[in-house]
Amino acid sequence: MNPFIHVIKIGSHVIDDKPLLSDFLYKVSTLNEPIILIHGGGKKATQLCKDLNIPTEFNQGRRITSEASLEVAVMVYAGLINKSIVAQLQSFQQNSIGLCGVDLNCIPAKKRPITENVDFGWVGDPSQNLDLSNLQYFLENKIIPVFAPITHDSHGQLLNTNADTIAFSIAENLSRLYNVNLCYCFEKKGVLKNVDDNNSVIPKINHLSLDTYIYQKQITDGMIPKLMNAASAIKAGVNNVTIGHAEDIIQLLKGTAGTKIY
Amino acid sequence: MNPFIHVIKIGSHVIDDKPLLSDFLYKVSTLNEPIILIHGGGKKATQLCKDLNIPTEFNQGRRITSEASLEVAVMVYAGLINKSIVAQLQSFQQNSIGLCGVDLNCIPAKKRPITENVDFGWVGDPSQNLDLSNLQYFLENKIIPVFAPITHDSHGQLLNTNADTIAFSIAENLSRLYNVNLCYCFEKKGVLKNVDDNNSVIPKINHLSLDTYIYQKQITDGMIPKLMNAASAIKAGVNNVTIGHAEDIIQLLKGTAGTKIY
Repeated sequence: MNPFIHVIKIGSHVIDDKPLLSDFLYKVSTLNEPIILIHGGGKKATQLCKDLNIPTEFNQGRRITSEASLEVAVMVYAGLINKSIVAQLQSFQQNSIGLCGVDLNCIPAKKRPITENVDFGWVGDPSQNLDLSNLQYFLENKIIPVFAPITHDSHGQLLNTNADTIAFSIAENLSRLYNVNLCYCFEKKGVLKNVDDNNSVIPKINHLSLDTYIYQKQITDGMIPKLMNAASAIKAGVNNVTIGHAEDIIQLLKGTAGTKIY
Repeated sequence: MNPFIHVIKIGSHVIDDKPLLSDFLYKVSTLNEPIILIHGGGKKATQLCKDLNIPTEFNQGRRITSEASLEVAVMVYAGLINKSIVAQLQSFQQNSIGLCGVDLNCIPAKKRPITENVDFGWVGDPSQNLDLSNLQYFLENKIIPVFAPITHDSHGQLLNTNADTIAFSIAENLSRLYNVNLCYCFEKKGVLKNVDDNNSVIPKINHLSLDTYIYQKQITDGMIPKLMNAASAIKAGVNNVTIGHAEDIIQLLKGTAGTKIY
């Protein structure tokens, strides 16, 4: 049997909530299990763009990464957020290393092609087959790799990449070597039957029940792409996908909280 | 005999000169020798502080790292500059990894104590004994570690650290396991007899001739601390220190350009 690993994505709401982030990282440091963290952005990049008068550009409703906003993304994600997370883990005596897709050539990507006249700018879609063999050294030595959502095009250009996509790519590629538990931490306790009721968590969803929930409009809006993504991960070989709140990380990894997609 | 390694520090003038940096990284990628790079800052951090109206603070003529300017240092050094260098090395098919002192807990440091009423702010002085054992994995696998001059206090606080000092610390600590060639790349061809004449490079200096040159005022100003630093590195067990221009990196490492301190 393959060894298991947790691939945990933490969203912007965790990054922006310092006590929650600290509590989350402390809990992670007590686990003593093989973990890879992927973090998203947060308000800091938006604020920095504002302070620098870098406009947030849209084309047909879709966000564009200009050269200036890519610089901000690299500075904030791969610099400030990434190294602050690693510093906190180190303060909990949990060895860790801050990486982005360019390091060890973990996540080469392609600049998203211009479609229907929309140029997304410096946005990258990860290559399908990633060579993550160097991560094994860290995992075997109880070092947590912490990934910022930045990739590169192999020709020297850094690219901005969605953090959910990075988590998905890493989980999918590692599923060839590990039993992967992919865990998305967001601002809710899990997939809720009633969006306003944190006690209405649906504990388990498979692809059949997912279709039913969507058909019956019990799952709507932003949750649909998240769950479709989770279902794709399962199809791609990931063993479990769990969705829930960062404060429940221990229970999420044990399978006693959040929503499990299988 | 211990295996050898090059510890190369590149200064701000290389970071700020894109064609020179690119040429330097290309040359480094052709070497196929064990290398660790340490880079300094450059104009970008100063510019960003200006754009964000972060004042450059001094106390009794000494620069202070405020919380805001530390954030800028982390973003620019450990984010933008570090990952751009790694992306360029990857484009030359040279695997590499961007690190700072917090990663793998390579360089724990102490916030510089307040002396004579001067608080330098978030500035760190590296611990004497560094555990760099994890770097061996990269070196054995032909991966170049690229260090940004940021450290941490082991309690979650990132610290700004002089890049020359980081290079010195890494070189000194690795000299227990390797024959270390420490190479400082700056804007001159080496230590010059006549500051305005790039052809007046002094090829070799030992600590005795260093004293003579200083006494005779042939070596002055900014070169003195650089050379005193180099002499300390030799005393600390580093095999060679070479000082010269980044464009001559191949010759510097071969010992056929620049100034060698021994």
